[in-house]
Amino acid sequence: MLTPKFDNLVKELKVLPSVGQKTAQRMALHLLNHKRTQGIQLAEALMIAMNEIKQCQICRGFSDDDICPICANPQRDNQLLCIVETAGDMVAIEQTASFQGRYFVLGGYLSPIDGIGAEQLGIDQLIFQLKRQIDEGNPVKEVILATNNTVEGQTTAFFVSEAIKPYVGQISRIAQGVPMGGELEYLDSMTLGQALQNRGKI
Amino acid sequence: MLTPKFDNLVKELKVLPSVGQKTAQRMALHLLNHKRTQGIQLAEALMIAMNEIKQCQICRGFSDDDICPICANPQRDNQLLCIVETAGDMVAIEQTASFQGRYFVLGGYLSPIDGIGAEQLGIDQLIFQLKRQIDEGNPVKEVILATNNTVEGQTTAFFVSEAIKPYVGQISRIAQGVPMGGELEYLDSMTLGQALQNRGKI
Repeated sequence: MLTPKFDNLVKELKVLPSVGQKTAQRMALHLLNHKRTQGIQLAEALMIAMNEIKQCQICRGFSDDDICPICANPQRDNQLLCIVETAGDMVAIEQTASFQGRYFVLGGYLSPIDGIGAEQLGIDQLIFQLKRQIDEGNPVKEVILATNNTVEGQTTAFFVSEAIKPYVGQISRIAQGVPMGGELEYLDSMTLGQALQNRGKI
Repeated sequence: MLTPKFDNLVKELKVLPSVGQKTAQRMALHLLNHKRTQGIQLAEALMIAMNEIKQCQICRGFSDDDICPICANPQRDNQLLCIVETAGDMVAIEQTASFQGRYFVLGGYLSPIDGIGAEQLGIDQLIFQLKRQIDEGNPVKEVILATNNTVEGQTTAFFVSEAIKPYVGQISRIAQGVPMGGELEYLDSMTLGQALQNRGKI
């Protein structure tokens, strides 16, 4: 619309999630008008992140080095392991500041039709680590399955739990029920049904 | 939250307009998980745009070269000039595909309190160009003042029109009235008042 370099920037900005033509234009104009220095810093941060962020060799989350800061942190309880679908789920749990164990990132959910099975989810690697901790006399006492509360997430949780059963003390699943602020009248019946089924004693 | 390089990317993404912590995280995770190549392309496009896009020496819009594609296009009517506040306004008008003249970008609105006066808005440069076109026997026949319909935009339009009056045939202002789809019942009274005042014969 304006110039080839501008149009190219707009085109590339559209790779960002929920950014369409109008938003991309607004972003490009904002940076060009007022934030050139920060635009360059953003380009540098992007380049470094895209090229250098790799998979942690232990938890398969994102990491700058071979081992991520969480796995490398001796303060974290390595007898408590939380299994999540994505690194984004790991970020979400970290932000609750209510989990002090370590993680394992499956990198997706079980989906044989898409060719995603045990190998893609790193189940062998997970079992290898669980076994090694047993050998080291430091077995994982509890695994928390924190996959999504979707059909795929539930299936994945069941599949993982079957696979790791011999190697861990206890396997648990994050609670499924009424979310904070949820009003029963407006809740979908699936959630309400789960909440009734999973009721706890008080 | 995850790793320094990830956190830095999130921080830098927040320079984008209406992108806060949550959206920036979602963008970073999306790129890292699925779009590394496109992320690198975005970084490159950003770097090029931020470093190389300059001001067109004629219209003061954005340009890859000294003269922008619109000013350099011999098909455009250079006896019709549209004056806008920002390059973004220029993009918006171009997208209507209903203007075939050329532009002049003020780069803001008149605001003496912020030190933005005739010099900052390029009025001298504008008058110089108008004069040169007169000398070349190719005077500008009509100037359209397309500044925003705000107090500042109106003041700026008045100021510019006073300054260029001696050098152009006709000065006009884009119409102010009821927008497309506007229902009178829900329109603010300022707009409705302007629409009544600016009523046209049919």
